[in-house]
Amino acid sequence: MDERLQRTIAAMHECDADWAILSGADSIAYALGYAPSAEIGVSPFAAGLALAVIGRDGAAGLLAPAYEASQPREGIVLRYDGYGPSQALPARAAYDAALGDLLRQLGVGGRIAIERATHPALADSRMQAAPADLTAALRRQRMTKTEAEVAALHRCAEVAGIGQRRMMEALHPGITELRLFSEIRSAMEDAAGARIAVGGDLISGRERTAAIGGWPNSRVIQSGDAVISDLGPRVEGYWGDSCATVVLGPPSEAQARLFEVAHHALEHAIAELRPGMTAEAAHRMIRGTVQASGFDYPHHTGHSIGTAVHEHPRLCDGETTVLRAGMVLMVEPGAYDPAIGGARTEWMLHLTENGCVPLAPFPLLASVS
Amino acid sequence: MDERLQRTIAAMHECDADWAILSGADSIAYALGYAPSAEIGVSPFAAGLALAVIGRDGAAGLLAPAYEASQPREGIVLRYDGYGPSQALPARAAYDAALGDLLRQLGVGGRIAIERATHPALADSRMQAAPADLTAALRRQRMTKTEAEVAALHRCAEVAGIGQRRMMEALHPGITELRLFSEIRSAMEDAAGARIAVGGDLISGRERTAAIGGWPNSRVIQSGDAVISDLGPRVEGYWGDSCATVVLGPPSEAQARLFEVAHHALEHAIAELRPGMTAEAAHRMIRGTVQASGFDYPHHTGHSIGTAVHEHPRLCDGETTVLRAGMVLMVEPGAYDPAIGGARTEWMLHLTENGCVPLAPFPLLASVS
Repeated sequence: MDERLQRTIAAMHECDADWAILSGADSIAYALGYAPSAEIGVSPFAAGLALAVIGRDGAAGLLAPAYEASQPREGIVLRYDGYGPSQALPARAAYDAALGDLLRQLGVGGRIAIERATHPALADSRMQAAPADLTAALRRQRMTKTEAEVAALHRCAEVAGIGQRRMMEALHPGITELRLFSEIRSAMEDAAGARIAVGGDLISGRERTAAIGGWPNSRVIQSGDAVISDLGPRVEGYWGDSCATVVLGPPSEAQARLFEVAHHALEHAIAELRPGMTAEAAHRMIRGTVQASGFDYPHHTGHSIGTAVHEHPRLCDGETTVLRAGMVLMVEPGAYDPAIGGARTEWMLHLTENGCVPLAPFPLLASVS
Repeated sequence: MDERLQRTIAAMHECDADWAILSGADSIAYALGYAPSAEIGVSPFAAGLALAVIGRDGAAGLLAPAYEASQPREGIVLRYDGYGPSQALPARAAYDAALGDLLRQLGVGGRIAIERATHPALADSRMQAAPADLTAALRRQRMTKTEAEVAALHRCAEVAGIGQRRMMEALHPGITELRLFSEIRSAMEDAAGARIAVGGDLISGRERTAAIGGWPNSRVIQSGDAVISDLGPRVEGYWGDSCATVVLGPPSEAQARLFEVAHHALEHAIAELRPGMTAEAAHRMIRGTVQASGFDYPHHTGHSIGTAVHEHPRLCDGETTVLRAGMVLMVEPGAYDPAIGGARTEWMLHLTENGCVPLAPFPLLASVS
């Protein structure tokens, strides 16, 4: 049994649940390895959320629309028709019937745990009593990564690095943000051999980089502009993340300073992050190096990553979770000043007993010509 | 008051509901014009689904994460912090508090209607009694399009046409499906001035086109290959759709025949589709022309379109809804044969009292050289 399914079951034990119905796309990808496309929002072939049903003994099943139901890592699949020549909209009757079949085939009963934030009312009528909430226990189980997850995340970091390198090559005066992003995404999709979802930011110029984030638009990039390239590709169900900031042509003294402050904070994190620190302490330590330089950033310092982009724990004030070996953390300190612009640098760090190791780091350059 | 909000309220009247809580992204986009990005699945800044709350008197509110909460067309917005330097994960407490504030500010009470397929258990504890299901009434209200919607869909059809034209220009021996798709998407994003979600299919060669659909991969396209380019761009909350099939270089007689059969079925639909037919009758009429030529397609004939790609009614067996002037329908007949490949052609058609008019049609060519 895959360790991720084992850990899902461990979370069910914590909740004293006999069965779990997972409704979060990231939880289903985690438990069963089923990760349909995320690029177009809700699938037009779906009559309701995909659901995974897990038993304490490892029995597992998946409810998904026929058109996109690939075989999960473990368990059976109940497919319903969301597309055929005789399937009128909505396909809810087909969905309901398939869900009923799935619960019957698995023999679901007893105490059921759900994910409260995503659990659909559609599935509620199937339950006798108020279900338990699996969310917190599953979050804890997913904090550290299995060996297979570290390998998957390493691959995501490599793809993100390919995107960052392409960004530095393709950047030239006169290119729009949208065209630059298109070059970047195309290089990452070539590397992945498939369309991939890409989150993050692609912004340029003083005003836009000072505003921290945003998606590319028609703005034309010119010499002297800084570009913040925050690339989060999703490859086979796992997310990467990364951020580079470069100035096109020689940076001004102030731009170089912003970059150095952000870069120094990331280097400081790599040198000092250790298991045993709280997430809050890590946040304050890293943000403190930026503040000591007279700058600041109004966002978290980083976050765990896996089948969701932002996983627990987040590196921020109030997060008392203790960092542990086996976590994979994004660390993304920045420095922003409305008069100068913004800079942010972000690598993926694998926490080990002795410190942390960047996974597939890409060059962090202050500028390209 | 925007006509779409009026129609949402009309659906509430049908359900005898005092208030509605909308949880479907397409319904929220319809009622309030709030359409956050759909390109990366669930937003990492969201602690739960965005919800719209609508009163019978037109009072309206939106619950959304601060980072991506743009102002909707109407109503107030309750933003919660899903991102800040002191917002640990999950941000559910912030979400819960904002939802409570929203319901209090609007004075929500009485009989509440929800969308059963997407309504989250998270919001359920806020409700006294079993809520009504708004889904069917809202589906009926949305069947015909308002003037503003026809304009928005026309724009989507234009963007899809730009993508199809770019496909025909960029297609050359040796290009991969992924690179061709990248060219297409980039042209559409340039036209839209923003990143856009793109659904559909991009497949090439006998085996893949015979299999109807799929996303682009690393397959290298060569002379003699057919390409099915089914492009569904989402522009400012509305979806376009379209399908072209072209052979690279001179088509074989069999390939030309497949194209002609699909194309003829579409032309027949444009000539014959009329208000007053049932969706099922339209499906049978159009599919019948393909079957009469000795081919067939194992999918629906088409579908309405709007803030969701597939809206009601679908043109398929068993759909007895009567077509009405003011509908905008995608019609996509195809012809598939494992020994030859596949062909499909699709335009967006606006149903009027007298027949139907293609919105921003693009050239349908059997081949490009």
